[in-house]
Amino acid sequence: MSRFLKEKLKSLETYTPGEQPQDKKYIKLNTNESPYPPSEAVINALTRSEIEDLRLYCDPECKKLKSAFAELYGVSEECLFFSNGSDDILNFVFWAFGQDGAAYNDITYGFYSVFAELHSIKPTVVPLKNDFTVDINAFLGQNKLIVIANPNAPTGIAVSPAEIEKIIASNRKNIVVVDEAYIDFGAESCIGLTEKYDNLLCVGTFSKSRSMAGARLGFAVGNKELINDLDRLKYSTNPYNVNRLTQIAGLAAVKDNRYYTDNCKKIMDTRDFVTSRLRGMGFTVLDSKANFIFAKSDKISGSELYKKLKEKDVLVRHFESERISDFNRITIGSREEMEIFLAKLNEILGE
Amino acid sequence: MSRFLKEKLKSLETYTPGEQPQDKKYIKLNTNESPYPPSEAVINALTRSEIEDLRLYCDPECKKLKSAFAELYGVSEECLFFSNGSDDILNFVFWAFGQDGAAYNDITYGFYSVFAELHSIKPTVVPLKNDFTVDINAFLGQNKLIVIANPNAPTGIAVSPAEIEKIIASNRKNIVVVDEAYIDFGAESCIGLTEKYDNLLCVGTFSKSRSMAGARLGFAVGNKELINDLDRLKYSTNPYNVNRLTQIAGLAAVKDNRYYTDNCKKIMDTRDFVTSRLRGMGFTVLDSKANFIFAKSDKISGSELYKKLKEKDVLVRHFESERISDFNRITIGSREEMEIFLAKLNEILGE
Repeated sequence: MSRFLKEKLKSLETYTPGEQPQDKKYIKLNTNESPYPPSEAVINALTRSEIEDLRLYCDPECKKLKSAFAELYGVSEECLFFSNGSDDILNFVFWAFGQDGAAYNDITYGFYSVFAELHSIKPTVVPLKNDFTVDINAFLGQNKLIVIANPNAPTGIAVSPAEIEKIIASNRKNIVVVDEAYIDFGAESCIGLTEKYDNLLCVGTFSKSRSMAGARLGFAVGNKELINDLDRLKYSTNPYNVNRLTQIAGLAAVKDNRYYTDNCKKIMDTRDFVTSRLRGMGFTVLDSKANFIFAKSDKISGSELYKKLKEKDVLVRHFESERISDFNRITIGSREEMEIFLAKLNEILGE
Repeated sequence: MSRFLKEKLKSLETYTPGEQPQDKKYIKLNTNESPYPPSEAVINALTRSEIEDLRLYCDPECKKLKSAFAELYGVSEECLFFSNGSDDILNFVFWAFGQDGAAYNDITYGFYSVFAELHSIKPTVVPLKNDFTVDINAFLGQNKLIVIANPNAPTGIAVSPAEIEKIIASNRKNIVVVDEAYIDFGAESCIGLTEKYDNLLCVGTFSKSRSMAGARLGFAVGNKELINDLDRLKYSTNPYNVNRLTQIAGLAAVKDNRYYTDNCKKIMDTRDFVTSRLRGMGFTVLDSKANFIFAKSDKISGSELYKKLKEKDVLVRHFESERISDFNRITIGSREEMEIFLAKLNEILGE
């Protein structure tokens, strides 16, 4: 770091994205990307004329996208916010609403603790129960910013809107953020509760179920005043942060929703197939409602399995944190990719 | 705003982007966009296969783009930083380096004061001289973050690297940021000084000379330790903020540099033509080295001219600030657009 850097940023621990090695071709089951490309509608929407229009600024309000999205989700446009990926929105959330501290789980998306530190927010780290489910009671009456990933990552375990509603109702002086990055793979969204509670914000992304990780499009749904607050931060930092082609791709994806819900069904089927095969091989596999599973074996350590799979050109994600170091997070790829994964796994266990 | 918003964000004055009206077709000379589309190389680079790969995350390090850019500019890769537009980088700059206060001109890019307020940085507002040139001496020995737009906006007036070097050399405890958004239209870049001074950061954008305003690609060149500091903020907020298609378009643009330097020449020629015509009509036109001119007439007020041009489907930008309210900022479009602009202007002055 330079001698000019602000003191409090010097000790910052940054987020570590999943590895993206370039040395050879891997079966990439480590960053929860979709195995399916964006739909034909998206590909056809990115025309020569749209590319030529890159010379012009994009619409900072994302009006066309907002209108189509509002219709699909049955929400009001003024209750919608778009930004450069859901990380961008989560950063705004900690920045704008963290003044009383923030509570989140010990085992969850690793960026929450980075945001808390970045914005000098006192964290309250709530342990998952022994079975890795969220301890709802521990979040009641916290009176601080609460952030819940639902389904949670890397466990994949979901909670019901009714359970989350208890947290929202008991925490009316602060907002509850439900990070629904993986909601489309079998869990139930809390978006329906945003009309009832002005202290609920649901955050989503086009990166997973809509096959647009590389396009950077995140959204938030909440009371219009919360949305105004997010706009305030966006217009004070980077108003044009959702680029033209991403807005066009996002609009086409929203209008072609069926393609994506079909993909989600395929991924859920593959997930169930892999889960049952792994359990048959003696693995412990948590009940996932996401596009990944979290699994461990008593025959091989988590880090060893990660390493051996990588040697066999299959990338999964291993986390060093103590409570979960026996596990690996395995993204659900295509059926073909998962058959190869299972075959390699059999080889490793047979060695 | 909501009742949950952090107190110090409640009074924030956000940045106001130039208007993007959708009611009819305007000749758009209000946001300094290029009249020329991205090159054929850019259009050809955004293939079906690349669009399909949107399902995958982008490279947070922008490695391919960095390598080509480093070669073109003759700088080391470790001295380069890419982010979601230069606004994004300027936000990081105020965040990371503003702890001793920040000095910038009274008449300059309006976002600097927004960033200062956002990050609770004490501003030192340095007035331009009466002729709207930068008062170099007033910046000497400030011992705080200094931000100079060169060429300045909305004046278009440039200063030489030798003048800026005096500021850098006298301010060694803090960094000097040269915002070179408009550098490619006839001014001289300070990038060559980044090897000599560890307290200099040059910030640039693909939005103007590279016809990619809607793609969101900004860059910074500086000492590798400064670049590390910027990376630290990027990896603590939104590591994937430059999307896949923008990285590919940017790479193609860098490799096809000649097309863009030719466009800059055309814009400079048109600028000189318009400047001389306006002066012939009695306008005061500042000496611009940017892709816009700043002009006033003693026959019509700045706001009146803006309004009458808009009625005639020509959009320019008018600022209310007292010192410059007589002026309008007029982006240099194509020769054809500027002929129409001049004809409408003649009509207005003849009314």
